[in-house]
Amino acid sequence: MKALKIALTGALALGISGVATADQYEDAIKYRQAAFTLVKGNFGPMAGMVKGEIPFDSAAFAEHATNVAAAAAMADDGFIDGSDMGDTKAKDAVWENRAEFDKLMGEFQQLTQELAAVAKGGNMDEIKPKFAAVGKTCKGCHDDFKSK
Amino acid sequence: MKALKIALTGALALGISGVATADQYEDAIKYRQAAFTLVKGNFGPMAGMVKGEIPFDSAAFAEHATNVAAAAAMADDGFIDGSDMGDTKAKDAVWENRAEFDKLMGEFQQLTQELAAVAKGGNMDEIKPKFAAVGKTCKGCHDDFKSK
Repeated sequence: MKALKIALTGALALGISGVATADQYEDAIKYRQAAFTLVKGNFGPMAGMVKGEIPFDSAAFAEHATNVAAAAAMADDGFIDGSDMGDTKAKDAVWENRAEFDKLMGEFQQLTQELAAVAKGGNMDEIKPKFAAVGKTCKGCHDDFKSK
Repeated sequence: MKALKIALTGALALGISGVATADQYEDAIKYRQAAFTLVKGNFGPMAGMVKGEIPFDSAAFAEHATNVAAAAAMADDGFIDGSDMGDTKAKDAVWENRAEFDKLMGEFQQLTQELAAVAKGGNMDEIKPKFAAVGKTCKGCHDDFKSK
């Protein structure tokens, strides 16, 4: 989310003095990791329901999907310049090939929003292909931009 | 969020076998901590703007407020029964006085949604009292339910 990234960059990385500190890069890393923790924490139960491993609860599924979209919308904001070092699994490729990363991140965010919209309908036949499409964007980005 | 807590409890704490594991409690703790990391990461720049320490960017402020509300809506879902042990600053009071905790959490979630709605208007005079009200709910809950 562009507007936010600018504000976060200002607040997290530059602060009032305009000088970035190691703590502020660390905060940015923790921020993006927190967003992915929430993506994963919500996506997991959704996967269980899609696979039929746990009973399909359409209200809970829709809420999980809303949460995934909200967390996905925040995920990019922590990838500020300079936050490539430290306790992170983000590859240098994020910053070296930023346009491609931003493209994949944008697709991920867009598809999670579409999944949240579809989930409100509560129809598993409509949910399944959209859920699979979101899962594909996770893998697609992790392959090139995240260390194992 | 009630529906979700039930699903998360099922997925995180009980899994397929119906038996909770230490890992699943740990996941619940990480989940709620991630939600609060995102609350804090967004609330910080908002505070900077409210105090005039960083320039007021109404679009970024509104996006931060939306994110705070989204993260707040997830925050309660990680406080599942049995997740009172481990690497957590949550006091036993959360589970011993659950009704009060849920009441304060509900007020926090409600007020963050109201703040997100007000923030869309971009009027700092309207934002300030609502922002202060949200801040008060943070402190009010931390006093009784979170270790320093």
